[in-house]
Amino acid sequence: MLIVMHHHATPEQVDQVIAAVKVMGLTAEPIPGSLRTAIGVLGNQGYVDDSTIRTLPGVRETIHVSKPYKMASRDFHPEASIIDVAGVKFGDGEKPVMIAGPCSIESEQQMMDAAEQVKAGGGQMLRGGAFKPRTGPHSFQGLGIEGLKYLQQAGKAYGLPVVTEVMRIEQLDPICKYADMLQIGARNMQNFDLLKEVGKTKHPVLLKRGMSATIEEFLAAAEYILSEGNGNVVLCERGIRTFETATRNTLDLSVVPLVRELSHLPIVVDPSHATGKRMLVPVMTKAALVAGAHGIMMEVHPNPAQALCDGAQSLAGGDFAELMQEIERLLEFLQS
Amino acid sequence: MLIVMHHHATPEQVDQVIAAVKVMGLTAEPIPGSLRTAIGVLGNQGYVDDSTIRTLPGVRETIHVSKPYKMASRDFHPEASIIDVAGVKFGDGEKPVMIAGPCSIESEQQMMDAAEQVKAGGGQMLRGGAFKPRTGPHSFQGLGIEGLKYLQQAGKAYGLPVVTEVMRIEQLDPICKYADMLQIGARNMQNFDLLKEVGKTKHPVLLKRGMSATIEEFLAAAEYILSEGNGNVVLCERGIRTFETATRNTLDLSVVPLVRELSHLPIVVDPSHATGKRMLVPVMTKAALVAGAHGIMMEVHPNPAQALCDGAQSLAGGDFAELMQEIERLLEFLQS
Amino acid sequence: MLIVMHHHATPEQVDQVIAAVKVMGLTAEPIPGSLRTAIGVLGNQGYVDDSTIRTLPGVRETIHVSKPYKMASRDFHPEASIIDVAGVKFGDGEKPVMIAGPCSIESEQQMMDAAEQVKAGGGQMLRGGAFKPRTGPHSFQGLGIEGLKYLQQAGKAYGLPVVTEVMRIEQLDPICKYADMLQIGARNMQNFDLLKEVGKTKHPVLLKRGMSATIEEFLAAAEYILSEGNGNVVLCERGIRTFETATRNTLDLSVVPLVRELSHLPIVVDPSHATGKRMLVPVMTKAALVAGAHGIMMEVHPNPAQALCDGAQSLAGGDFAELMQEIERLLEFLQS
Amino acid sequence: MLIVMHHHATPEQVDQVIAAVKVMGLTAEPIPGSLRTAIGVLGNQGYVDDSTIRTLPGVRETIHVSKPYKMASRDFHPEASIIDVAGVKFGDGEKPVMIAGPCSIESEQQMMDAAEQVKAGGGQMLRGGAFKPRTGPHSFQGLGIEGLKYLQQAGKAYGLPVVTEVMRIEQLDPICKYADMLQIGARNMQNFDLLKEVGKTKHPVLLKRGMSATIEEFLAAAEYILSEGNGNVVLCERGIRTFETATRNTLDLSVVPLVRELSHLPIVVDPSHATGKRMLVPVMTKAALVAGAHGIMMEVHPNPAQALCDGAQSLAGGDFAELMQEIERLLEFLQS
Repeated sequence: MLIVMHHHATPEQVDQVIAAVKVMGLTAEPIPGSLRTAIGVLGNQGYVDDSTIRTLPGVRETIHVSKPYKMASRDFHPEASIIDVAGVKFGDGEKPVMIAGPCSIESEQQMMDAAEQVKAGGGQMLRGGAFKPRTGPHSFQGLGIEGLKYLQQAGKAYGLPVVTEVMRIEQLDPICKYADMLQIGARNMQNFDLLKEVGKTKHPVLLKRGMSATIEEFLAAAEYILSEGNGNVVLCERGIRTFETATRNTLDLSVVPLVRELSHLPIVVDPSHATGKRMLVPVMTKAALVAGAHGIMMEVHPNPAQALCDGAQSLAGGDFAELMQEIERLLEFLQS
Repeated sequence: MLIVMHHHATPEQVDQVIAAVKVMGLTAEPIPGSLRTAIGVLGNQGYVDDSTIRTLPGVRETIHVSKPYKMASRDFHPEASIIDVAGVKFGDGEKPVMIAGPCSIESEQQMMDAAEQVKAGGGQMLRGGAFKPRTGPHSFQGLGIEGLKYLQQAGKAYGLPVVTEVMRIEQLDPICKYADMLQIGARNMQNFDLLKEVGKTKHPVLLKRGMSATIEEFLAAAEYILSEGNGNVVLCERGIRTFETATRNTLDLSVVPLVRELSHLPIVVDPSHATGKRMLVPVMTKAALVAGAHGIMMEVHPNPAQALCDGAQSLAGGDFAELMQEIERLLEFLQS
Repeated sequence: MLIVMHHHATPEQVDQVIAAVKVMGLTAEPIPGSLRTAIGVLGNQGYVDDSTIRTLPGVRETIHVSKPYKMASRDFHPEASIIDVAGVKFGDGEKPVMIAGPCSIESEQQMMDAAEQVKAGGGQMLRGGAFKPRTGPHSFQGLGIEGLKYLQQAGKAYGLPVVTEVMRIEQLDPICKYADMLQIGARNMQNFDLLKEVGKTKHPVLLKRGMSATIEEFLAAAEYILSEGNGNVVLCERGIRTFETATRNTLDLSVVPLVRELSHLPIVVDPSHATGKRMLVPVMTKAALVAGAHGIMMEVHPNPAQALCDGAQSLAGGDFAELMQEIERLLEFLQS
Repeated sequence: MLIVMHHHATPEQVDQVIAAVKVMGLTAEPIPGSLRTAIGVLGNQGYVDDSTIRTLPGVRETIHVSKPYKMASRDFHPEASIIDVAGVKFGDGEKPVMIAGPCSIESEQQMMDAAEQVKAGGGQMLRGGAFKPRTGPHSFQGLGIEGLKYLQQAGKAYGLPVVTEVMRIEQLDPICKYADMLQIGARNMQNFDLLKEVGKTKHPVLLKRGMSATIEEFLAAAEYILSEGNGNVVLCERGIRTFETATRNTLDLSVVPLVRELSHLPIVVDPSHATGKRMLVPVMTKAALVAGAHGIMMEVHPNPAQALCDGAQSLAGGDFAELMQEIERLLEFLQS
């Protein structure tokens, strides 16, 4: 950490800050400049809590050099992690994983149809939501445990590991029973209690980026899970909130190569939620793969026009099959 | 809802949309324009789920006229709500409520000292966090139930109702037992399961705006609580995330008069979290009161320089007392 | 346009609005709903100025159905435009155009070296700034007319049409003389006087998106140029400002397929300014091409470490040549 | 400046960076940490251009300690500046200045009526736009020089100094002739050529914050004007662009006390453009004054419903008079 003193800070104020750093068990190295004094803080093994220091007289600002994550950082874990979800692998050197399925689980038949289409198209994992977070309380809220059974059944019938969102801690037990991978939604990316409980399970986790989370906060959220001993985390970029409203969110695709440099964890992209427009899903899927995504999560519904949730961004099974053929060609090209 | 057709939509496509609207039990009113056709949707008693319609061929976009909240809207509840928290009242015509206390509950003594200072300064409610959401897993996480006891004890000793944050559903029972008001933090504003459970309690709720939530989403979150039968909701503006980093968040003060027009629920302001700078808290507190806030929530700590959390934005007790004198004069002026 | 009345608007207020619409020479079509009345406005040949209507009593909001651009819209110009810059063509069906060169023109030798590298790598156009907008007044500000001569000379020597930024109207004449294409920078996207003057020249224009401009505003800015009779506009996405600071801007790649649907104008991508990091330029270039960009503008400098401006995002000539080989392979694949 | 090396940077890379700093004529002070090395840069007299350094191998990031403005900073100019506009004074200790008038100058009569209302209400300066930047090319664009004459005439008739926007350099001469203060609009805040020319005039300037400009960029823009020798700069907060669309922009009121701490220049607030809603103007005006604004700029129009521009945010003369009475009382209270 670097502590920047005010232009007019007195030598006594500088000494007081140095003393406070020592109280924290760290070393202070003053760097007298021509305009102001800065104080380097040494000896810390990670992120330093600066709230005490920032309040001392004469301090203009504190600048963090360490990041609020360490186990998620490639600095301390240079080799890429490969995450195995019931045999499907995410990570460097593995074929990107296509996860597809409806936003919401609506019925046994719908999940069977969806799984058939995902399998036929060449998808490797099946998704579906049993508990849905919706913006207003008067919308469809999901089938719950019943839905989880349909999901598991459909996944088993077609040999597709399944992923579903966990929204509260009490849902963890049943979801771990029925699903191969737990999804943490964007709205819960900083639900730290949930992250910690998920961290205790060792179950593979798909952690979605919060809609206004910086990359630093995203990796710090992953750190919560890793800290509890669960290293099976796959990150997911799903668009951030900006002033632009022509798309549902703004897909921040540069985050893919950036996260690949900063972290050893795999990262996938969800173009359906990011854009909110079915028309944009195929093209942004391909762009994401070229940008280095370790997988794609997209919405596929047997009949998008009758979907109870997010139909406008779901592909029909036929469109998915067509897109998958193009993707296969693209992946072959990228590996050639 | 208004459905806008593409410029080149065919009459058959228009008919198909009209038919789909009828299937939803609503009435479609075509509005042929010189450049394109629009279709008004009538007969709905609130927000219409448009995901089916948006996917039909020839549809360019759908425009919502109804809002995703109704019980929280002043349209359907014109008189202002007064929320009573153990005798302290929030709302139009009531004196703005000053809620103060430390970010985190750290010890019995600290809470007693804080309560004494809050009472001495003229504050009406005491705050303190027992379970803390922190950005990184290696920071102080709160005292838990033990802390709740200190909070309640201190509140009782000084005659101050207490408010504390609930972060997960299992905490609801103890918090309802120890606290007079439940706080939903910004990170949980769209934790819909939590909102619903809180809605079942009838306990007064302080609902903080999510850091990237629009006003519409903020009121829709309140609607979740109201829908379950708990009308005791006080809203809290605490800053939003923008590109500006000179302040911790950007305090959106215009939201105060705007929410007062759109909703009957009271709204308070938290200048401590919004700005993240102690120096800005007094002046923005006064600006918020002039803007019409029904109360202020601010951080006061017996010794900010040793606070375990957010010390940089906490006022010391002496500063609080001084600020409260200025506030008293301002409130007198505003009522004169 | 749709005018939405307040829930409690009186019939007299509705009548007054209808009368005001008629005064504007348009037709008003009331759409009585179960909760409120809306009024459709018909007969307009484009965007309606709603400032009068919005102020009338009883009006809750106005909703625009028409967009603030028409000549730039694909609705009214379905076939894609091909823009020819001294023989290099931008648009559907043409090979994507690679524009490369230094941020700033620094010397005759530097431009000759840069042009040689751009040509050798397979680039089709040369870029370089003679007048630089810099964030602070104490930075390097550009060589001016002298620089333009170096740019033209280098372009001619290697058979590369050249593009450079025009920052003020008085620069238009010399720049039209020395350059084949005029660039309007992000900071000037809403400098309407400049847009209009550029519109009078018929010179090809590269219009960069403003850093906080919506797609709608971006196309409305293009409309200013088109309205003056200059249809030779190529759009350029260069990143938008968001809360994320890990990259210089947030590259909004979804805008490429979206603009291709909304407008007939070609769109290119500038990954150098969007990301601000050299390491991200190659991968985001490829992603942009897969997303459908009609070209790429990137910074290439003979010696990035000594660049007077934006060296951190410039590729060296050798890296450019290597990237161009990968791009050639990608383009072949995309066309196969 | 602080240079942070990668965790795995070699001693040779550290030495290379130190050498590069010396080439720049500055001193490098290595600060070896337990996890990584940082290098302090000393000896600079202001902002350091880091583009060379950032590209060197082993460098993770550079962190600026100096700000990109110096003449605008209170560090180097501790006493507050008082800006005198034809006898009206902006700054600490002066009564806040109320600037009012229509968005656009529409006719001689309109300006006379507006000036009469502004004077009658107690306003101290008159505003009005002769050249209007509008989002689309098909809107009203202003009366030009003719309008300037009406503005000057009306100002003289009622003893009100006048301010108007300059949009291009060629307009500078006539505007300096007719107006007492030049306004730089938000869209031109980073039109550096215009800033420099304005800096050469010594005419008082009202510099509006760009809609996505940070406070640092805002003060750096002021620095451009100061650097040319014109110290008569008044800053103006007018709202920033965020994800919230319920207001036209988000009024960032915390910027007022923050700028007062960082800079010696006065700062005023424009609640009309910030909120875009007439209903919010009075309350946000009062909040801005309490926050410490040195003045307010607001839109007042003799007949808002017939305004050719931004009628929805303009107050009628009667409403202005009423608001001014409340403001007088508030200012008396604040000074008591």
